Amino acid sequence: MKQLLLSLLIFSSFAPTYSQTDEDIEQIAKIYEQMLTNSSCHDWLRYLCKNIGGRLGGSPQYAAAVRYTSEVFKDMGVDRVWTQPVEVPYWERGEVEKARIVNSRQVGTHELAVAALGFSGGTGPMGVTGEVIEVQSLDELEKMSVGKVRGKIVFFNRPMDATRINTFHAYGRAGDQRTSGPRKAAKMGALATITRSLTLKYDDVPHSGVTIFGDQKPIPAVGIGLKSADFLSALLKKESKVRVNITLSCAHMGKRISHNVIGEIKGSKYPNEIIVVGGHLDSWDIGEGAHDDGAGVVQAMEVLNQMIKMELKPQRTIRCVLFANEENGMYGATVYADKAKEKGEKHIAALESDAGGHTPRGFTMDAQKDLLKPSYATAQEWRSVLAPYGLYYLQTGGSAADISKLKSHGAVLFGFRPDSQRYFDFHHARTDVFENVHKRELVLGAASMGALVYLIDKYGFENSKKD
Amino acid sequence: MKQLLLSLLIFSSFAPTYSQTDEDIEQIAKIYEQMLTNSSCHDWLRYLCKNIGGRLGGSPQYAAAVRYTSEVFKDMGVDRVWTQPVEVPYWERGEVEKARIVNSRQVGTHELAVAALGFSGGTGPMGVTGEVIEVQSLDELEKMSVGKVRGKIVFFNRPMDATRINTFHAYGRAGDQRTSGPRKAAKMGALATITRSLTLKYDDVPHSGVTIFGDQKPIPAVGIGLKSADFLSALLKKESKVRVNITLSCAHMGKRISHNVIGEIKGSKYPNEIIVVGGHLDSWDIGEGAHDDGAGVVQAMEVLNQMIKMELKPQRTIRCVLFANEENGMYGATVYADKAKEKGEKHIAALESDAGGHTPRGFTMDAQKDLLKPSYATAQEWRSVLAPYGLYYLQTGGSAADISKLKSHGAVLFGFRPDSQRYFDFHHARTDVFENVHKRELVLGAASMGALVYLIDKYGFENSKKD
Repeated sequence: MKQLLLSLLIFSSFAPTYSQTDEDIEQIAKIYEQMLTNSSCHDWLRYLCKNIGGRLGGSPQYAAAVRYTSEVFKDMGVDRVWTQPVEVPYWERGEVEKARIVNSRQVGTHELAVAALGFSGGTGPMGVTGEVIEVQSLDELEKMSVGKVRGKIVFFNRPMDATRINTFHAYGRAGDQRTSGPRKAAKMGALATITRSLTLKYDDVPHSGVTIFGDQKPIPAVGIGLKSADFLSALLKKESKVRVNITLSCAHMGKRISHNVIGEIKGSKYPNEIIVVGGHLDSWDIGEGAHDDGAGVVQAMEVLNQMIKMELKPQRTIRCVLFANEENGMYGATVYADKAKEKGEKHIAALESDAGGHTPRGFTMDAQKDLLKPSYATAQEWRSVLAPYGLYYLQTGGSAADISKLKSHGAVLFGFRPDSQRYFDFHHARTDVFENVHKRELVLGAASMGALVYLIDKYGFENSKKD
Repeated sequence: MKQLLLSLLIFSSFAPTYSQTDEDIEQIAKIYEQMLTNSSCHDWLRYLCKNIGGRLGGSPQYAAAVRYTSEVFKDMGVDRVWTQPVEVPYWERGEVEKARIVNSRQVGTHELAVAALGFSGGTGPMGVTGEVIEVQSLDELEKMSVGKVRGKIVFFNRPMDATRINTFHAYGRAGDQRTSGPRKAAKMGALATITRSLTLKYDDVPHSGVTIFGDQKPIPAVGIGLKSADFLSALLKKESKVRVNITLSCAHMGKRISHNVIGEIKGSKYPNEIIVVGGHLDSWDIGEGAHDDGAGVVQAMEVLNQMIKMELKPQRTIRCVLFANEENGMYGATVYADKAKEKGEKHIAALESDAGGHTPRGFTMDAQKDLLKPSYATAQEWRSVLAPYGLYYLQTGGSAADISKLKSHGAVLFGFRPDSQRYFDFHHARTDVFENVHKRELVLGAASMGALVYLIDKYGFENSKKD
């Protein structure tokens, strides 16, 4: 309580018009209490990870996750559960993915730790072999003559910037090497690409993730573990020509149908005003999609589950949306937004958890220009009741990929922001498994989201009706 | 930068008199940059954990840690390194610690996961066997008749309160069962005690930690893993009498000499004003003392190391103190404070890291009554330059055990506060090992401490000279 009072004092200057009611303080305490002593999300995550596993859009595992989460929604007793078909491009990794340095003067043959990037082209069983050229950026590549790149394996080796405190900022600034590098290299006639894994953890675990070829014919493209990357880079300084063989069995498999999964609690007073809480149900196929984004999925589901258990009757409709194929195209998000527009649905707010199941820090906010300022002012007023739970962070900025399409619908968007330090240790890697999610941190995230949804439902924004 | 500006805006209301200078913003950015790209603390921690291991006060391992850290101080080029002898009580765990349910109707013989509490009495090789009575609190025990307790094994089984957001608060409220329970039980003639481990992680790892017998003759006292505790408790509901055999080879070994280790950088302008930054060098003997408090030790050392590397010349004397036997008596802290008083040294501030090597959240502050208010006001003004590094938390409250003795010397005390969610997963258990410390989180902690020391040194408090 002392902590709470002090926090109120600290944040009182933010709250010229709102003074947190005893009801809010009490209700949010109850949400946390309930979640911390009696939540299901950790068990749901275990099932998603251990019984289903990696859930790439279009895969049988993804379909199993649709069935499972639909059942969980029904069991918890939401008012309505449905799915939305989404056509997604399907890609399979297959059994083989390897790379090795060949015929080196210094090291002979040397295995490198690699994983195919999502949508990478495959190779025949003998693989492709070529000389490696290292670049630090797409710029550096584009300045090279096509003659120098043609037939080569382009090695993008710029590390993430360790001096960024928020690791997502470091990721953002290095990510083009994975998302766009292979396409640019392919355009210049490169044989294949190797991208330094987007992580700050110094190990030899390769990280995957999407690469986008667009109209360009895919070439083999792998992510490489940091120790392997440094090994290769050091060798390139010693030998004028280093040749690498890459063998990948991955293949593009055409289109498949996946589904968004939606569970809904009808609003008691303003049923036509919708608040979305969500995550994406798909994940990369290596690992179990535990932090990305199994955590977000089960946290969002828990928000509805606890509302029902606690017999909280929201004024507005609370809709939990589990989006299809965030990782390989975001068509799930597009379908959801298009359907909503078609039906003339009014989304007043959306909150997504897609930054891992780590200890909560706060939220980012986004909205159309005129809506953002007053909405931010409203949310600022809630700081005093959120700060005792460690939710000090509230800043404008991008929310999350899937809900971003609802911005143009006039919704106020929130991205849940857990601590970022560990996220890229596991991201898109075989280490993104259930065991690396901390139960209490996961649950605190669900509670943080529950608290925010409670406040949004109660107070609304400029875009919603007031009592 | 956008993040920084927004933070400045958010916290501007706290800063009526101070406006952070460009120099502060730049200098603190440099400290973080340097630490995040070129720090030694993770390597030092590896050595402390892997080459030395658990460092109980009075043990040969503790002596090795004194030698090692003294050498590191010399190598980094501090102005002065010295040690202070501290007489400590020495206790050895020995090879055997086990407990088992015997002659149960339901389960026959059943092993329980236990670890002797520090200063527990030992048993002969056959152990002691007695009937178990379960209590939820010391109060409940004290209300029992001596006749009911005599010759029994008292089982303290109150769980930590999972609804506390800060796990240290939950620890504080359950801790009496370990620190004082065995003494109270011994006073009532109990044969031995079993205490539910002070953790929120549901596993079967027993946690140790000090228990204080004072003038009471020690009896065997163990911590028990949560799963074993629940198993025992469930059995007690089914069988009227449950008997347990406890066998411990631990023993009190009299007094030994340990040492505080101190490294110092002389102040350029006010050399007689001392700022202490520290942690405790001792740890429990099970595990490696990684989070408790190897992390704090190496973070404190890193503060001095980076000052030297960056050629920051502090105005005041910065003294890194590695305290002896925090875990088993705090005599190191007493010796340090007494010596300081003897010499008439002026300590203006002290900062200790003894809450684990997890992701930084902020600081607590403490001081004598008249000093606290103006010092807190001063520190509040620094929020704007600390917030971009995730250091949002600054509240009055207890700092840390070792430096608390400097409060009466007129020092302003700071406790470094990392996120608390994972700390008690490992605390005083065999799982408190190097692998469970996250390098980047550890280093960010050192940087946070470095930033605060920079500000204290530059601006001082009411108790120090001003430019």
